[in-house]
Amino acid sequence: MTKKNLIVGQSGGPTAVINSSLYGVVSEGIAHSDEIGEVYGMVNGIEGFLEDRILNFREALPGEQLDYLKHTPGAYLGSCRYKLPESLEDPVYPLLFEKFEEMNIGWFFYIGGNDSMDTVSKLSRYAAQTGSSIRVIGEPKTIDNDLVHTDHTPGYGSAAKYVASTVREITLDASVYEKKSVTIIEIMGRHAGWLTAASALARKYKGDNPFFIYLPESAFDTEKFLKDVESAFEKNCNVVVCVSEGIHDADGTFICEYDSSVGTDTFGHKMLAGCGKYLENLVRDRLGVKARSVELNVSQRCSASLISAADQKEAVSAGRFGVQAALNGETGKMVSFVRRQAEDGSYQMECGLEDVNLICNEEKEVPAEWITENGSDVSDEFIKYVTPLVQGSVNVPLGEDGLPVFVYRK
Amino acid sequence: MTKKNLIVGQSGGPTAVINSSLYGVVSEGIAHSDEIGEVYGMVNGIEGFLEDRILNFREALPGEQLDYLKHTPGAYLGSCRYKLPESLEDPVYPLLFEKFEEMNIGWFFYIGGNDSMDTVSKLSRYAAQTGSSIRVIGEPKTIDNDLVHTDHTPGYGSAAKYVASTVREITLDASVYEKKSVTIIEIMGRHAGWLTAASALARKYKGDNPFFIYLPESAFDTEKFLKDVESAFEKNCNVVVCVSEGIHDADGTFICEYDSSVGTDTFGHKMLAGCGKYLENLVRDRLGVKARSVELNVSQRCSASLISAADQKEAVSAGRFGVQAALNGETGKMVSFVRRQAEDGSYQMECGLEDVNLICNEEKEVPAEWITENGSDVSDEFIKYVTPLVQGSVNVPLGEDGLPVFVYRK
Repeated sequence: MTKKNLIVGQSGGPTAVINSSLYGVVSEGIAHSDEIGEVYGMVNGIEGFLEDRILNFREALPGEQLDYLKHTPGAYLGSCRYKLPESLEDPVYPLLFEKFEEMNIGWFFYIGGNDSMDTVSKLSRYAAQTGSSIRVIGEPKTIDNDLVHTDHTPGYGSAAKYVASTVREITLDASVYEKKSVTIIEIMGRHAGWLTAASALARKYKGDNPFFIYLPESAFDTEKFLKDVESAFEKNCNVVVCVSEGIHDADGTFICEYDSSVGTDTFGHKMLAGCGKYLENLVRDRLGVKARSVELNVSQRCSASLISAADQKEAVSAGRFGVQAALNGETGKMVSFVRRQAEDGSYQMECGLEDVNLICNEEKEVPAEWITENGSDVSDEFIKYVTPLVQGSVNVPLGEDGLPVFVYRK
Repeated sequence: MTKKNLIVGQSGGPTAVINSSLYGVVSEGIAHSDEIGEVYGMVNGIEGFLEDRILNFREALPGEQLDYLKHTPGAYLGSCRYKLPESLEDPVYPLLFEKFEEMNIGWFFYIGGNDSMDTVSKLSRYAAQTGSSIRVIGEPKTIDNDLVHTDHTPGYGSAAKYVASTVREITLDASVYEKKSVTIIEIMGRHAGWLTAASALARKYKGDNPFFIYLPESAFDTEKFLKDVESAFEKNCNVVVCVSEGIHDADGTFICEYDSSVGTDTFGHKMLAGCGKYLENLVRDRLGVKARSVELNVSQRCSASLISAADQKEAVSAGRFGVQAALNGETGKMVSFVRRQAEDGSYQMECGLEDVNLICNEEKEVPAEWITENGSDVSDEFIKYVTPLVQGSVNVPLGEDGLPVFVYRK
């Protein structure tokens, strides 16, 4: 019997370690050459696969080049935002499985967030329905950390380390003048506050900046916010505040919408500024003090220099574990992280498997008990949760140009 | 005869290595304990000194804590934006020199940009006029690299490394979808394009993104810009463009002013968005493609993880050299960098001294011959100039929290 081949794809927005998960899948696949034939990648996810855009990893990244995946940002294989049809009667399914058969695919891996797990769910259900022997496994990734049934997600630790380190640096930068100032830092995470909460780690000592941290899990009240800032001036003339991009008021209106409702550009179009810019203007206007806003932006998900070594290692493990699970006959599962305590009390992580149907289209928020009563800070329990995830740094090799060396598709 | 004491201050906006220059001055001062007594720091520059806010480095940063200055962002001593009066007849001058005498100051060091060199100029001229024996030396720093009579400035190399590395990462992040997109990256540098020019290093191969780099030294033409972007789509569906915050059109109007002239916030105030946000809206409107803008913001001057080892080393050397020069009787000078070529053709830097009066209030632009003819790129000569300045990375120690350990005033 000919050995079946493996194929892997990436989908959705990248993280700093989405390529570490890819490395885990590919290197484990190659290591099992007794059971697995070729190791393919689909270029631009399932969408590119439908257009026959694939590569063979043994040719694309020979030798140590494969190792470079571990610190390369972006999605090496390219990504897509393609949602498979709800009805498994749709003709795209037989088309896909015909292609799988032509390529003799026996193992299918998809690295992504909620939407990608939806793809894993549909393909595994179609396989079950048609009696296909193909194994379909989901590899989690998201900086938002909002997947259910897993302690955390690969990508979150590095983004959290980026946020915490950068907020610590910005706080030093924002504290050089003896003059009242407010710095608003806007952080990603969509509807979940996990990433913004990590800014609490930036504090060098109890009572340090950032004084306030506002998550989308609590309703944001602009008047209370202004009072919070004024009270902070009693302790420090330089006040740093961290806000989630998704903060909203009690009515559910996003704070960033307040600006766009009035600001227009030269073409008469609404200017979509973020909530940080809005709050910067609010502070300058109402409190009459120097204000600045900083949107941390895409570096949160693509900074190689601030990859968390713990996150990178776990992302590789998740990739490897998924391949081992598929070889053991598992399908329709997502690799999950289960937190354990070692005998000495230290953090340990084990990989597990969860039914992918219970994960797709769900969102996990920061628990209410981890947000302090006044809605402007996080608890020590959260700090205990997040600290092991940001440990260690990664040595990124530099080229002759003095810059990090990354791999990319030619 | 009692030994004279040394005092050092920091002024203007911080850089990633302004504390490395401070380390150089302080460690060299302590090393010369045969000639120099105490080593003091003024808190918040000359402004804080006038309020008697000083510290003694032997107490504030004992032992290896002093070494931590080298990777700590922000200005450890705090900063100020205080301009001394033009007239040397002003009563602030005798007041300052009385304080110097009380503290038995013999050596005065000021780390900063243009404005700080103005302070060095005035204090050294007042000293000469009154026969004071105090030696006054300026230590350069600016990420803008716009000081004259020096090959480059400490702080520029690290900011350039940050810009180049981050643009390389953002380009990978922005290239994951097979769908037309434009990413505009807005870079600091005020009226000089040195920092934006460094984004050319981000290219991994000839013809790679960023496709276009616009500096304030050339007039910006929005219609030509749109044509540039459209032509780039013939080569790559994901186009990355780097712009200086200070780009302006042929009439001298800053591009960022076009938005603020119409956008207002809920208070009826002008919303000052940057030129990146303006161009993002322009591209979306006129070309009908996905557009995003990223303002690199203050991390350009405070990222510890992307400090250039070459820049850090040179900043320390400049600090040390200034102390040696003062001990040799020099005053009214700024430490400068002179580029040499080693016998094997490699880059070498030597410290020099320049009359501070020729430096303050001047600005150095990117030479016209280093900007390519169409005004949207830089030449190979610039690449040769900047490459040695971004070499090497620095190991930043991590604490138990997994984050960089910095020193700060208690």
